[in-house]
Amino acid sequence: MPAFPEIERIPFEGPDSHNPLAFRYYDENEVVEGKTMKDHLRFSVVYWHTFRGQGSDPFGPGAAVRPWESGVDDVANAENRARVAFEFFEKLGAPYYAFHDRDVAPEGESLQESHDNFDAVVKVFKEEQQRTGVKLLWGTANLFSNPRFMHGAATSCNAEAFAYGAAQVKKAMEVTHELGGEGYTFWGGREGYQCLWNTDMKREQEHLAKFLHMAVDYAKKIGFTGQFYIEPKPKEPTKHQYDSDTAACLNFLREYGLKDHFKLNLETNHATLAGHTMQHELEAAGAADALGSIDANTGDLLLGWDTDQFATDIYLTTQCMHSILKYGGLNPGGVNFDAKVRRESFEPIDLFYAHIGSMDAFARGLKIAAAMRADGRLEGMVRERYASWDSGIGAEIEAGKHDFDSLSKIMLEKGEAAPNTSGRQELFENVINLYL
Amino acid sequence: MPAFPEIERIPFEGPDSHNPLAFRYYDENEVVEGKTMKDHLRFSVVYWHTFRGQGSDPFGPGAAVRPWESGVDDVANAENRARVAFEFFEKLGAPYYAFHDRDVAPEGESLQESHDNFDAVVKVFKEEQQRTGVKLLWGTANLFSNPRFMHGAATSCNAEAFAYGAAQVKKAMEVTHELGGEGYTFWGGREGYQCLWNTDMKREQEHLAKFLHMAVDYAKKIGFTGQFYIEPKPKEPTKHQYDSDTAACLNFLREYGLKDHFKLNLETNHATLAGHTMQHELEAAGAADALGSIDANTGDLLLGWDTDQFATDIYLTTQCMHSILKYGGLNPGGVNFDAKVRRESFEPIDLFYAHIGSMDAFARGLKIAAAMRADGRLEGMVRERYASWDSGIGAEIEAGKHDFDSLSKIMLEKGEAAPNTSGRQELFENVINLYL
Amino acid sequence: MPAFPEIERIPFEGPDSHNPLAFRYYDENEVVEGKTMKDHLRFSVVYWHTFRGQGSDPFGPGAAVRPWESGVDDVANAENRARVAFEFFEKLGAPYYAFHDRDVAPEGESLQESHDNFDAVVKVFKEEQQRTGVKLLWGTANLFSNPRFMHGAATSCNAEAFAYGAAQVKKAMEVTHELGGEGYTFWGGREGYQCLWNTDMKREQEHLAKFLHMAVDYAKKIGFTGQFYIEPKPKEPTKHQYDSDTAACLNFLREYGLKDHFKLNLETNHATLAGHTMQHELEAAGAADALGSIDANTGDLLLGWDTDQFATDIYLTTQCMHSILKYGGLNPGGVNFDAKVRRESFEPIDLFYAHIGSMDAFARGLKIAAAMRADGRLEGMVRERYASWDSGIGAEIEAGKHDFDSLSKIMLEKGEAAPNTSGRQELFENVINLYL
Amino acid sequence: MPAFPEIERIPFEGPDSHNPLAFRYYDENEVVEGKTMKDHLRFSVVYWHTFRGQGSDPFGPGAAVRPWESGVDDVANAENRARVAFEFFEKLGAPYYAFHDRDVAPEGESLQESHDNFDAVVKVFKEEQQRTGVKLLWGTANLFSNPRFMHGAATSCNAEAFAYGAAQVKKAMEVTHELGGEGYTFWGGREGYQCLWNTDMKREQEHLAKFLHMAVDYAKKIGFTGQFYIEPKPKEPTKHQYDSDTAACLNFLREYGLKDHFKLNLETNHATLAGHTMQHELEAAGAADALGSIDANTGDLLLGWDTDQFATDIYLTTQCMHSILKYGGLNPGGVNFDAKVRRESFEPIDLFYAHIGSMDAFARGLKIAAAMRADGRLEGMVRERYASWDSGIGAEIEAGKHDFDSLSKIMLEKGEAAPNTSGRQELFENVINLYL
Repeated sequence: MPAFPEIERIPFEGPDSHNPLAFRYYDENEVVEGKTMKDHLRFSVVYWHTFRGQGSDPFGPGAAVRPWESGVDDVANAENRARVAFEFFEKLGAPYYAFHDRDVAPEGESLQESHDNFDAVVKVFKEEQQRTGVKLLWGTANLFSNPRFMHGAATSCNAEAFAYGAAQVKKAMEVTHELGGEGYTFWGGREGYQCLWNTDMKREQEHLAKFLHMAVDYAKKIGFTGQFYIEPKPKEPTKHQYDSDTAACLNFLREYGLKDHFKLNLETNHATLAGHTMQHELEAAGAADALGSIDANTGDLLLGWDTDQFATDIYLTTQCMHSILKYGGLNPGGVNFDAKVRRESFEPIDLFYAHIGSMDAFARGLKIAAAMRADGRLEGMVRERYASWDSGIGAEIEAGKHDFDSLSKIMLEKGEAAPNTSGRQELFENVINLYL
Repeated sequence: MPAFPEIERIPFEGPDSHNPLAFRYYDENEVVEGKTMKDHLRFSVVYWHTFRGQGSDPFGPGAAVRPWESGVDDVANAENRARVAFEFFEKLGAPYYAFHDRDVAPEGESLQESHDNFDAVVKVFKEEQQRTGVKLLWGTANLFSNPRFMHGAATSCNAEAFAYGAAQVKKAMEVTHELGGEGYTFWGGREGYQCLWNTDMKREQEHLAKFLHMAVDYAKKIGFTGQFYIEPKPKEPTKHQYDSDTAACLNFLREYGLKDHFKLNLETNHATLAGHTMQHELEAAGAADALGSIDANTGDLLLGWDTDQFATDIYLTTQCMHSILKYGGLNPGGVNFDAKVRRESFEPIDLFYAHIGSMDAFARGLKIAAAMRADGRLEGMVRERYASWDSGIGAEIEAGKHDFDSLSKIMLEKGEAAPNTSGRQELFENVINLYL
Repeated sequence: MPAFPEIERIPFEGPDSHNPLAFRYYDENEVVEGKTMKDHLRFSVVYWHTFRGQGSDPFGPGAAVRPWESGVDDVANAENRARVAFEFFEKLGAPYYAFHDRDVAPEGESLQESHDNFDAVVKVFKEEQQRTGVKLLWGTANLFSNPRFMHGAATSCNAEAFAYGAAQVKKAMEVTHELGGEGYTFWGGREGYQCLWNTDMKREQEHLAKFLHMAVDYAKKIGFTGQFYIEPKPKEPTKHQYDSDTAACLNFLREYGLKDHFKLNLETNHATLAGHTMQHELEAAGAADALGSIDANTGDLLLGWDTDQFATDIYLTTQCMHSILKYGGLNPGGVNFDAKVRRESFEPIDLFYAHIGSMDAFARGLKIAAAMRADGRLEGMVRERYASWDSGIGAEIEAGKHDFDSLSKIMLEKGEAAPNTSGRQELFENVINLYL
Repeated sequence: MPAFPEIERIPFEGPDSHNPLAFRYYDENEVVEGKTMKDHLRFSVVYWHTFRGQGSDPFGPGAAVRPWESGVDDVANAENRARVAFEFFEKLGAPYYAFHDRDVAPEGESLQESHDNFDAVVKVFKEEQQRTGVKLLWGTANLFSNPRFMHGAATSCNAEAFAYGAAQVKKAMEVTHELGGEGYTFWGGREGYQCLWNTDMKREQEHLAKFLHMAVDYAKKIGFTGQFYIEPKPKEPTKHQYDSDTAACLNFLREYGLKDHFKLNLETNHATLAGHTMQHELEAAGAADALGSIDANTGDLLLGWDTDQFATDIYLTTQCMHSILKYGGLNPGGVNFDAKVRRESFEPIDLFYAHIGSMDAFARGLKIAAAMRADGRLEGMVRERYASWDSGIGAEIEAGKHDFDSLSKIMLEKGEAAPNTSGRQELFENVINLYL
């Protein structure tokens, strides 16, 4: 018996459709800039919010109605949930999914028992992957929920929390490898501090580096060649997370010789919590050849916590897809819906509405970004702005032919710099609206 | 005729004094942790706010009453102002000052004329330094006010703005060197962007790196051995400044091979605009051996712009001085009052009230921090928190004796990590209050 | 000789136009929901930003190129500027404008001289209004720039600042009346505090109420029947402004018996600085029958100051126009562009680009909002959400037929409330995208 | 067997004590400004955080170790917990406590069963109150956790959620009355909206007003004469709560004729989430004769959610106590510790450390504020600032003797306002430090 009997496989109906269960923009086979939309967008559903989220918040317990849940947190329920999840992926038409180890199966009394529970459900995942063709975008380990990780895992003051985390990541990497996962992500949920007075920041960061080196070594050992990602977030649940934004992650990776082994998994809500636009983070990562994957969601800029809402703003999706196209696309990364329906949208069908609306918004953003690139007007305006660097003194500086003496001599002779051109910010913003 | 006839050299009167023109905590000769307070704190007055600030804001022009100003922006007025400034430094008892080139003397019609104006006033600075013993903490160049720098200087889309900036820094470095300045600071006022759509971020950052390398080379050439500083600030006047926080600066310096040549000049108001505490920035810089100097001020955390208020909060000054003592003190850096009286505090005497109050707050913070360190209670509590890393599995991990396999094996055997200890954040915060 | 020789009166070209000087959506004669777009939108240009703004910011002086400015701040220059402004309004096709007294003409040595200067330029305004048909949306007085108002005007600790402000508002009201202005606005630029320790908040607010009552009385006396507006803003230039948001304004107006005499002039950038969406402020004012006019702009939610950017986000303009249509339109208010080109957009033509782009965005928002209302789908979804209040126990409660006893009795019998319906937030957000 | 065997009743040891379980400032019998510290501070412990909080957060379950909990959520466990709580109040020396109905006893299958469970535990409360002398500061009902209240209670789109909430408040008021509670608080946890598009704000607010009127009527009916409080908070868990700050609450109370029946229960963390200082909220409420009680805690201004930390900052506690003394003290309100130990401080003894540290910080704030008032220096500086309003034109304006005509006439004659005096903000801030 299907979990979602009222839903057929979601069809593409086109821009005029008002059917909330059909795609208006996402036609997976449509070719845009030489690739199908499916290959550009590589949509992924997250197991944690969509199949484990219950809608609880700090002021109330879960409210979600999930008829397939037995109410008992055991392996049997987890196995059944896995089959429902793949029914969802299939009907939605999402080619990928992502999970944490502890989303998949209940934690046992011992580490071994947790491993066993995990393995049991992974078996179902494997079957369902084969049956449906849905693939694993990336796996990860939850090193932040269990109280053992209250002070962090790799950065805990408790050395055994580090060791336990290592054992957990080892297993999660093996499972990811076994399921053909295309990447593995580190989000350092409690790798940071709550109170700086009680914290030895340097020592903690050295431990984190050591932990990541162990992961790199272990991947080599087991032949896992998927991409490693670090996911920036500045705060929540901790007051400060060490991987606070793109720059902080890159600084850390450079300091500890890890830059070649990691790319970034960027998330809009994390970007804005750090005081940056998602576009900034994408460009910062792209410029450093570190743009790996995105956690597609949005926050509410007037709220200071991680609301993880589904993104529907087409300015945002256009910015995302524009940067992604610019840096060569996401592969093996994807557009991963790390987003949750709000507590009040508690019915199963809300999961469909939410994903479809956001998939469509990203598809629309892709088409807009591709149109902008095809047209070239915006890029041309940017190129023109920097024209002074393409010849003369600008080109000479870029070529390393100047120093303070030579430049000073030239400017003393000229007395003043050449006039500036207008930044035309307002025109740039109007041009964006041309494409919407 | 003195500019401040009503003020004698400010005496130390001790904690019971209610005289707003006397120090209650800052006794420059008192020895704390083996050095005089003067040598610990190395107080510096900034020329820009204190002698050029008029109290204007985006909604109104200046309101400051400065009887020594002739009202004409010429060299003569600038020379007179210089003498008033040194009278102020002397009466206040500040051993250092700092300036931008354009604070010192009016900009001329040509670069050469600007250099000449600058030189004329620098002559007075030199005389006054000799007369008073007050020294130059650091110099810098203003590459953000003149409209030629509207798009930045080193990161401008206009190559000649880069060249002009280079000429200006060259001169400012020479003057700093001539005046015995102990450092040279780069604050990238408009080195960033207003609108990401019109910006080639990567190209701009490469230009910035080139600019800083030229500065390093030029210092070598002229024998300037003072410390170079970069000053993080995330935004304002631009939407985004590339040197946004400690991590972003370090990442940039590492990426472009500049890390050995620069330390950071940290500012509280810039830290909080970036979403960090000043203590965080101090610890992040200290841990990377990059803590250079501080711009001592405070923002208002409920306001989103750079208010540059004088810091009087002794929790803040204690945090600053605690980190500074921990990382070996500021030298050749200092506690530089990059702070301004508010527009409504428009009388000359407000300049004294403001500096005295904040110098006292830092002196008090120094004494509290030193007492905390002498007592050792707090540090002991921190050490105890990390005890698991000092022996057994923790020490082995630090010594590089483990990998995922060995740790996993141990944890599978143990089944669960050793229990955590309480983080005791509330107790830590109470302990801080013990010292106030 | 025209000031903008390159610009003809801006034509409507329709959605396919890529001409940055033509309207794509704003066809002033097109009828939407029974009125022309011109009558719905009542676009107004602000004199302060557009004709007095120079692009200065706290880190640099103005950079704007305005060839019509003589460089001397005298009446003759002001008169010439007035003619340029009307040329701009005409070519742009804006039917309204707005000003502060001190935007119009230079402040004199005495109040009388300021009045005289003002009158001289107002004469030109009158001629130009007649020549062009452009009308005055509202007038106001600048009671925040001159240092005499450093502590506020009506709320100053200096009673003569109050008196001077009263004299200035009296004159500004007379001029507004003479020019046929349709409203008069109070924005309390420095009516608030910088530091709560030095402030008697209650006494200051009583003074403000007295001031506004005097204005109401004076309007009656001179027969000015235009609408009075208060404009909420929470901070900047002061730390706290008393008119901080819609709720604070309404509370103040109710407390002091002024509610019937004032409506609100709402601004997006002020709303977001107060932590609210513009839509929230519009709905809060509309529900209290106090929605008067809007200052059409946008801020940057990641920046904490009043950037006053031109709004081009069609989600925002749709929200604005949806609420405005819902509450019966803006009349005698209007869509007033309290927005400025950024410092780097320094050419006169940027003024056209900016206004045209934002006028088009509002016209597009109007058409989208009207389509939503015509279709009724969204409103129907809302009505259905509240269906339980339209009959049975809900209708009885609304009719005043219940108290705690009766409700408790019913619920004790039922044991539990009827099930909730899903909030469908994600679906609502998808539905918005249907109309874009 | 006591729950806290290691803790004796907490003694006062004085400022030199380093004993973390002893008071250094809070000597309950010491007389300050004519009353004992106990009577000034009226400390209250909250049942929800201190006895029901488990340290869960959105990224992990509870971590608290509470040996007295049986692990079964039944009445027997609740009764035992009640006795532990009173042991805690007694050992701590807190004269008051506060609760929500659902903190006290488990919710039953039906409303009647919930009432019965509540009554059973209330019986223990009553006994323990008599045994210990500890009193109930105020009661309240939890109308936000149960999914039935997902859309709010009084403002729900589900009329039966309103009715159920009414029944719950009726019972909670009765219990509060029975226990001699001195007040009753309304915190509108979900009385607001998540999404404005799906919300009829005006209708919801009318329902809220109706609900509060029913409460006022019911209090009269049962003879409950305790103080009603509304507690402002701008957001979390909802995007917007109608009772967003002091001004919004007062506006609502005035609009619906409820102002005489309610005072405000102010909380620091809620104030700062609304963009205000706690001092601002206290002054705003005090000026409107609406300062009722405080929820004593602090947020972290760099975090955007309700961290509810224990306040230890003596600037904050001084500001609180200064305003409280100014407006005549809190009675029947109190200093209610709506604060929680952080997740990592998971041991029972952390509850003592946290409360003791914050009680001491408030006692210290009280002593500082009283010293400031006794000395009168600060108040004198404020009075002097407003001197122009005490005679001459200022006094005449206050006496209603002027209008725009008379003031204009005077200012035209004078030509300019009398000079301003300096705001002396920096001196004011230095003066605060004199007392610390």
